[in-house]
Amino acid sequence: MAVPATGWARGPPPAGLLLDINGVLYDGGGGAGGGVAIAGSVDAVSRIKQSGLKLRFCTNETQVTREGLALKLQRLGYAVDAGEIVAPAPAARQLLQQRGLRPHLLLHRDVLPEFDGLDVSDPNCVVLGDAAEFFTYDSLNEAFRVLLGLETPVLLSLGRGRYYKETDGLKLDVGAYMKALEYACDVEAEVVGKPSKAFFMAAVNDMGLTPSQVLMIGDDIVNDVGGAQLCGISALQVRTGKFMPSDEHHPSVKADGVVDNLANAVDLLLSEWKKL
Amino acid sequence: MAVPATGWARGPPPAGLLLDINGVLYDGGGGAGGGVAIAGSVDAVSRIKQSGLKLRFCTNETQVTREGLALKLQRLGYAVDAGEIVAPAPAARQLLQQRGLRPHLLLHRDVLPEFDGLDVSDPNCVVLGDAAEFFTYDSLNEAFRVLLGLETPVLLSLGRGRYYKETDGLKLDVGAYMKALEYACDVEAEVVGKPSKAFFMAAVNDMGLTPSQVLMIGDDIVNDVGGAQLCGISALQVRTGKFMPSDEHHPSVKADGVVDNLANAVDLLLSEWKKL
Repeated sequence: MAVPATGWARGPPPAGLLLDINGVLYDGGGGAGGGVAIAGSVDAVSRIKQSGLKLRFCTNETQVTREGLALKLQRLGYAVDAGEIVAPAPAARQLLQQRGLRPHLLLHRDVLPEFDGLDVSDPNCVVLGDAAEFFTYDSLNEAFRVLLGLETPVLLSLGRGRYYKETDGLKLDVGAYMKALEYACDVEAEVVGKPSKAFFMAAVNDMGLTPSQVLMIGDDIVNDVGGAQLCGISALQVRTGKFMPSDEHHPSVKADGVVDNLANAVDLLLSEWKKL
Repeated sequence: MAVPATGWARGPPPAGLLLDINGVLYDGGGGAGGGVAIAGSVDAVSRIKQSGLKLRFCTNETQVTREGLALKLQRLGYAVDAGEIVAPAPAARQLLQQRGLRPHLLLHRDVLPEFDGLDVSDPNCVVLGDAAEFFTYDSLNEAFRVLLGLETPVLLSLGRGRYYKETDGLKLDVGAYMKALEYACDVEAEVVGKPSKAFFMAAVNDMGLTPSQVLMIGDDIVNDVGGAQLCGISALQVRTGKFMPSDEHHPSVKADGVVDNLANAVDLLLSEWKKL
């Protein structure tokens, strides 16, 4: 464990935490199934809850509903309920309603319930998530035709990740498909999810806090750490999940601290800051 | 028919023609099947051949071999043989051999014979064409993993088109999938096919001519007209295929002339220039 002397643990202690899920709480197995808890993380989450710190789980997972994700976490031993999870699908739903948009949904089947009841007739935008095996030649052509047929094409992308690791290997993430549609339709996607500022702010507001009172902990140097910092939220990177040693010399993002895993982060939080 | 007074028919007559295929000779139905000859074009090709002008067909078609494409054109009434067709797949094959590359092929099944006999073991590059229904979640992940695993990733893309029209609607073209892989792997594709200069020059050289002796006729303002002009080849646009009225006011490309169809172009070529 090494925490660079960047001062993150010397300021006032945070009043709330945002935790990334995949790569921080568990490894492998996106969606509703699979996954293995990362050593020490189950206990770390319990200790955070006992400490009285406010807590939200801030994820770009779009293959499953919040309820499905909470069930999965519970199976892995975590005391998490759906209401504590901030995810792109419900954020997109809110955006669609605010702007009176009728979406064409190119999404994984298991996340569709997050959009239940919305008017999807005569669509005037496309919502793109990590559809995984539901990315097909036909489903991509269909979304493309909807976009190209719109006078003002609107593409909402649930995240902009390049790829991720599943148990059976690396997979293209939603960002790659977003780029395909952007190019074909000459449109720029609006990203809903990390690293968008609106998404982090929704999570901060949900805790009733301000960015300077919050600490983000994640494994993705760009989407977790860089995104949070752009909102004025301090951010630690864990050396689990998709962490790579080269992240510590990233050309544009420097974490406020780097720790071996969530358990180490919580040790520091609850011991160092208690002494202040 | 309107030919802007841009001087294309006032210089010395061309010694050779490059004709795009889809949208100039026929409409609809990519690959080996389907398609309807455009009115007047079968006779226009005959007249070009009788005139003594040199002729090559210059296409970005990558769903079928040159032999398959020649057969299709013959069924539509054209006197064309495979040796007159300049296409991206054989150009890519030559490039692979020159550079000692072993390709992973993400291509339509019907074009694979163009790569027969090449060493595809332990691939050190990816060749991407318009795979159409062979674009699947799995085939894209596989190509992505090959690229990401290379120390120096090489992605050869057979064209960079955004989309095209099939009988049953618009389809994403190879360029969209190229963008997806470029983004995921942080790599820039090398485009083999129009509008690449090397591709046009191969066609010009194959006729034993220089660019200033050649006239390109196509329906695509960027890939046919713009690409040819960048090589010093004059280029006419036909108002068939994917032509759109807005092409006549394209922000960066101005055709040397615009004609209703190939028959009109040949009328002008064989009458106007004969008088000079």
